[in-house]
Amino acid sequence: MTLEVQGRRVREASRVVAGASSGVRADALRLAADLLVADMPALMAVNADDVGEARAGGVAGAALDRLALSPARITQMAEGLRSVAALPDPVGEVVDGWVRPNGLRVERVRVPLGVVGVIYENRPNVTSDAAGLCLKAGNAAFLRGSASAQRSNDAVVALLRRALAKVGLPEDAVALVEDSSHDAAVEFMRLRGIVDCLIPRGGKALIASLLEHATVPYVLDGDGNCHVYVDRAADLDMAEAIVVNAKMQRPGVCNAAETLLVHSEVAAAFLPRLEEALAGVELVADGRAREWLPSAAPATDEDFATEFLDLKLAVGVVDDLDAAVAHITRFGSGHSEAIVTEDLAAADRFAREVDAAAVVVNASTRFVDGGELGLGAEVGISTQKLHARGPMGPRELTCTKWIVRGEGHVRQ
Amino acid sequence: MTLEVQGRRVREASRVVAGASSGVRADALRLAADLLVADMPALMAVNADDVGEARAGGVAGAALDRLALSPARITQMAEGLRSVAALPDPVGEVVDGWVRPNGLRVERVRVPLGVVGVIYENRPNVTSDAAGLCLKAGNAAFLRGSASAQRSNDAVVALLRRALAKVGLPEDAVALVEDSSHDAAVEFMRLRGIVDCLIPRGGKALIASLLEHATVPYVLDGDGNCHVYVDRAADLDMAEAIVVNAKMQRPGVCNAAETLLVHSEVAAAFLPRLEEALAGVELVADGRAREWLPSAAPATDEDFATEFLDLKLAVGVVDDLDAAVAHITRFGSGHSEAIVTEDLAAADRFAREVDAAAVVVNASTRFVDGGELGLGAEVGISTQKLHARGPMGPRELTCTKWIVRGEGHVRQ
Repeated sequence: MTLEVQGRRVREASRVVAGASSGVRADALRLAADLLVADMPALMAVNADDVGEARAGGVAGAALDRLALSPARITQMAEGLRSVAALPDPVGEVVDGWVRPNGLRVERVRVPLGVVGVIYENRPNVTSDAAGLCLKAGNAAFLRGSASAQRSNDAVVALLRRALAKVGLPEDAVALVEDSSHDAAVEFMRLRGIVDCLIPRGGKALIASLLEHATVPYVLDGDGNCHVYVDRAADLDMAEAIVVNAKMQRPGVCNAAETLLVHSEVAAAFLPRLEEALAGVELVADGRAREWLPSAAPATDEDFATEFLDLKLAVGVVDDLDAAVAHITRFGSGHSEAIVTEDLAAADRFAREVDAAAVVVNASTRFVDGGELGLGAEVGISTQKLHARGPMGPRELTCTKWIVRGEGHVRQ
Repeated sequence: MTLEVQGRRVREASRVVAGASSGVRADALRLAADLLVADMPALMAVNADDVGEARAGGVAGAALDRLALSPARITQMAEGLRSVAALPDPVGEVVDGWVRPNGLRVERVRVPLGVVGVIYENRPNVTSDAAGLCLKAGNAAFLRGSASAQRSNDAVVALLRRALAKVGLPEDAVALVEDSSHDAAVEFMRLRGIVDCLIPRGGKALIASLLEHATVPYVLDGDGNCHVYVDRAADLDMAEAIVVNAKMQRPGVCNAAETLLVHSEVAAAFLPRLEEALAGVELVADGRAREWLPSAAPATDEDFATEFLDLKLAVGVVDDLDAAVAHITRFGSGHSEAIVTEDLAAADRFAREVDAAAVVVNASTRFVDGGELGLGAEVGISTQKLHARGPMGPRELTCTKWIVRGEGHVRQ
C-alpha cells in the first residue's frame, strides 16, 4: 500500500471520527487501555525483539532505554489513555458568538483538525499517547515512528485499532506508516490534502528536513534553550532550589534549564554556593562568573546557544534586567524562561518583555508541561507562534469553524 | 540594503511596537489617516505614474482598476485606518487562566506575533490596510507589494512611517521590500528568525511558490470555490435571492459562489427561474440540470473544481443532502459553503458535516468577510486549519504567551 493510498484511508476514517460522539471516542481509549494491560506479555515480547536488534546494532544507554517497554511503562501508557479519555472534550465548544446589527447570527465552534500526522523517534509510548490525544480531539492519527521501534509501534497500533473496531469506529483512524526510510518521511511531509497538521517530535535534522520539504501545515516542537535569571532582588535560597530543580530534576528534556544568568549585585553571594548545590553538573561560565566559580571552564557563545540536554550548565553574570532580557532574546529558543525575584516590577517587566512560549516567575522551568499546567496531557510543546504556543493539549489539536445563520440575508 | 538587513531593522522595531501602549499605536493609525487625506494630490500623482507605466506595458481592465487610486479610494484607506484604530486592542487580553492544585498560578495572555510579512498584488490600498491591522495588534508590518505598484506603495509606506515617527515609534515598524523580483519574494519566504508570520495574498503561482520555498510560518489565504446548496425544503424565493447575491453582487472575490447545487425534488421548480434571475451569468450545468437549463453548456469536473471569479456559475443536481456534502467535500476549497433550507435537521447536519472555514445557513456566502462578521476589518481569509480559519482580524494577528507564577515551586 502506498503512503498516499494509506493516507486516503486515514482521511476517510477521520471524517467518521469527527462525527462520532465524545462518548464513543472515550470508550475507544478506555478499551485500548484495557487491551494494553491484557496484552502486556505479547507486547513485551515484541518490544524485546526491537530492543535486541537495536542493541546488536550498537544502540546503548539512554537511546536504548527510551526504546524499552516495561510492565510499569505499559501500565503508564494505559493510565495515560484513561486520563485523556476523562478530560473535557474540546469538540463542539462554542468559542465565541454574537448577533450582527442586521440579525445575522455568528458563532465560532471548535471542530477537529482532521488528520494529524506525528513523526517521532524511538519511544513506543508516544504511539499510544499521541493517538489518544488525536482521537480525544476527534482526529485521525497518522503516525510515523522510527525503524528501531517498528515492531513495538505496530503492536501498539494494532491494539488501538482493535479498540476502535470494537466501538464501531473505523480502524484506519489510527495508522502507522510502514516504510520508515528518510524518503518516506519526506513524502509524508508532502501529503498536502491528506495531512491537516503535522507534529514533528525529533531533533534538529528532522526540523531542518521539515522546513525544507514540508508542504503540509505543521506545528514545530523545537528546542528548549531555557534560562533561569536570578535577579538582584531574589530570595537566594529559593533561587538555589529552582536552579537545582530546573537543571537536575530531569536534564534530558526540553524544559530543563541550560543557562543561568545572575545579577551582578548578587553574584558574590549566590555563585559560590552553586558548586556544591550543583555537584555533578559540568559548569561553563563567562569571565565574570568564573571569579566565583573557579573550577568552571570558560563559556563560549556557542555554549550559551546550546541545548545541552545533559548535566551541563552555562553561567553568566549580567548587570541588570535589561541585560538578562537581551541575553535571552539573543540566545533563547522561545521555550521557557524563568526569573527569580521578590521585586514585583522586575517580575512584571520580565514577563512582559521576554518573548517565549512560557515565562515563569519564582518557579522551575520544569513546570512548562501539559500535565503540570493543567491541560491533562500534551502531544508536544510548540515553540512557534502560530496556532499553538507552549504545551499542546486536546484543544490545540482542534481548529474552529464559523457558523453563520440568517433568514435570507443578502449583502447590499 | 539587503533584505536580511532590512528585516533585522523591522524585527528590532517590532520589539518596541510590542511594548507600546494601545493608545500610542492607535494614535499612529489616526495620524496616518490624516496624512493620507492631506497628501492626497501627491499620492494621486505618484499613482498616476504607476498606472501609466502599467497601461503602457499592456495592463488593462480589472487589473488596471485594482492598481488605480482615486480620491474616494484614498478616503476609504484613511477611514479604514481610523476604524481599525477604534477596534478593541487584542494585546494583553487574558485568554484563560487558573490555579493549579499546588498553588501555581497559570494564565495565557495575548501578545503580538512580532513581524508579520504580507505579500500582495497590485492594490496599493492593501498597503495601509495590512499595515494598520498589524500595528493594531502590536506587530511590525514587513510588506512586499508588486512591481507595478511600487511607487504608490512607497508613498503610502512613507506616510505611515511619518506617522510612526510623530508618535515616537520606530519608522521601521512598517517597511516595504524594495526589490520586487521573484527571487526576492523567495528570499522573503525564507527569512526564518525574522518573519514570525507570512500572509500571502495572491494567486495560485504565489501559493505554489510558498509551499515549495517557505521556511517561515505562514497562514494561507487560499481559493474560494464556494457552493450554494438549495435543499428540498428551501424557500425558493429566498434561494433565488441568495444565489443571485452570492454570484453577482461582486463576482471577482473569494467569497462569491462558483457552484450551485440543487436538490432533485426542487430542480424543476427552481432551475427554470434562474435563466432570467442570473441574466448575464454564463451557466455550465451537469446533465440533469441541463434538462431545466437548456441554454447552459455541459459542466465538466474541471468546471466544478474552478474558482471562476467571474460571471460564470456551475450548476449541478443532487439527490439529497449527503450527495451535496459529498460534492462539496470533493470539489470545495474549504472557504464558505451555504445551504438554503427551512428544515432544521438539514441545516444542522450541513453545518456539522461540511468541512470549511465558514458554513452559512440561509444567507449569502458574501457575508464571510471580517467586516461583515464583526471583526472590524481583516488582513485576509484563511483557508487553512492551523492558527486562524476564516477572516483574520486583529486578534488573529496575535499569539499567546503562558505566564506561570509560583512562590519557589520546584517539580517533584
